[in-house]
Amino acid sequence: MLHILYIIAITAEAMTAALAAGRRQMDWVGVIIIACVTALGGGTLRNIILGHYPMTWIEHPEYILITAGASIGAALLASMMKKLKLMFLWLDALGLVVFTIIGCRLAMDLQMPMLIIVLSGIITGCGGGVLRDILCNDIPLLFRKEVYATASLFTGLVYIGIMQLGYGTHAAAIIAAVLGFILRLLAIRYKWQMPKFVYNEKEEF
Amino acid sequence: MLHILYIIAITAEAMTAALAAGRRQMDWVGVIIIACVTALGGGTLRNIILGHYPMTWIEHPEYILITAGASIGAALLASMMKKLKLMFLWLDALGLVVFTIIGCRLAMDLQMPMLIIVLSGIITGCGGGVLRDILCNDIPLLFRKEVYATASLFTGLVYIGIMQLGYGTHAAAIIAAVLGFILRLLAIRYKWQMPKFVYNEKEEF
Amino acid sequence: MLHILYIIAITAEAMTAALAAGRRQMDWVGVIIIACVTALGGGTLRNIILGHYPMTWIEHPEYILITAGASIGAALLASMMKKLKLMFLWLDALGLVVFTIIGCRLAMDLQMPMLIIVLSGIITGCGGGVLRDILCNDIPLLFRKEVYATASLFTGLVYIGIMQLGYGTHAAAIIAAVLGFILRLLAIRYKWQMPKFVYNEKEEF
Repeated sequence: MLHILYIIAITAEAMTAALAAGRRQMDWVGVIIIACVTALGGGTLRNIILGHYPMTWIEHPEYILITAGASIGAALLASMMKKLKLMFLWLDALGLVVFTIIGCRLAMDLQMPMLIIVLSGIITGCGGGVLRDILCNDIPLLFRKEVYATASLFTGLVYIGIMQLGYGTHAAAIIAAVLGFILRLLAIRYKWQMPKFVYNEKEEF
Repeated sequence: MLHILYIIAITAEAMTAALAAGRRQMDWVGVIIIACVTALGGGTLRNIILGHYPMTWIEHPEYILITAGASIGAALLASMMKKLKLMFLWLDALGLVVFTIIGCRLAMDLQMPMLIIVLSGIITGCGGGVLRDILCNDIPLLFRKEVYATASLFTGLVYIGIMQLGYGTHAAAIIAAVLGFILRLLAIRYKWQMPKFVYNEKEEF
Repeated sequence: MLHILYIIAITAEAMTAALAAGRRQMDWVGVIIIACVTALGGGTLRNIILGHYPMTWIEHPEYILITAGASIGAALLASMMKKLKLMFLWLDALGLVVFTIIGCRLAMDLQMPMLIIVLSGIITGCGGGVLRDILCNDIPLLFRKEVYATASLFTGLVYIGIMQLGYGTHAAAIIAAVLGFILRLLAIRYKWQMPKFVYNEKEEF
């Protein structure tokens, strides 16, 4: 089931990334690259940092075709996607929790310490969006807006916490996904933001 | 012969990168770093993603000296380079196809699936320029201008296609390089561009 | 002793990075991520390039807690830090030479060639700041201001040079650290800059 959710998640991520590329007037090559980096970049970054080879998309090149296809589809159907915005926000939130749990589980399989398991989830969940923003020449949204990394952190903590209580990994994954998903949707609905640190001293160190 | 072309290619890439650094008023440290990242970054990125160690430039540190030297030379001779602009565009096109073929061949030696072989060529051919643009704080040119990634994709497809037809890797490399090179030069000459995807809906997902 | 200096260095780097994040109105998630990337990113980048696993902070997750804590502390005490600016510039300079020597030593342990040892020091010393500037959407300061990478290069060269003269690695580390530190402080004090390469030809290659 995690596998099916993963496919849905990379499709949703690719489609929203394609719109981000369209806002910057990229050509179709740019659209596809941005989509692949956004959908597959978080897991790739995590694997590079953990030294875990090969990449998922090298073992399953069909994932690249799915993201490329989804991004082209989104570009063609852009005007329609506008009306489906809410659905995409939901799918993006789904992607966040699914990616996070996959990232946690991989680090757990590699016998990583607790803190690294949580971090692996956050990198997998949020890394793709950060790479997208770097390529689009923006300050990553993640650092300034919305309870996004926080929802990923929360999902990871719940996932680990429930397993510590003696429950199986499946039960933990489902509960963590549902709670993380709800947190993210509430954050979108009520425009929750983390407190900001504003420092106006101009001179750089 | 691919080796000699490789040396020419990293030299050309380093020299054009030095000018990009000069346009942003970097000091000589910045010029050298931008040059090395541009000339050697594509192959480095590919190796990191494929988990293929050690890096070429760690086995052959002389490549770093060549790119550093070429960038300093370009900075000193900048006024002359202006007149040689056409030559550098040609050398840059040569670099693109040579890097692409080297990237394809490496992935082939690692028994990667077809799609990854083509991607490995594109990452090797275009990755250095993307990293240069990230460091220069630009949206990568690749995503917005000219038939650049497309020429790399075309070169890789021709290379693989010809080998599938039963020809040897040398013949395939030469034919792919010549055709890719011609495509890139035609694209420069006639200012070919890929179709753009323009999406004006302001609100971010 | 290098270990204690390392802890001081990542703390100082995390605190100055937090202020950089605050200047861009990031929320606390952004502040912590920027701080961790700045303090631990140089070594991580070096390990990825050298293919040296696992990462230091995966073996010692407490380093992540230290940098996260230091960044939160800096955000809370920001007004006080302003008065301590000079101290932080000193600690940052200390971090630069300590990171550089650690980077050189690791590459040396891996039997890398001379040039790669020096480069490993520079990547470790300067990589975190470059990643911070990429995430903050700036052209890396390193490429435009101050004798920073040059102080790192100098430290690495002195370190290797003294060992070549037959002295032990401890003596070499201390002498290189002191001389590199002095060079950096002199550069800050007298606002030394490397010569710039200014190239005004607008048209991009």
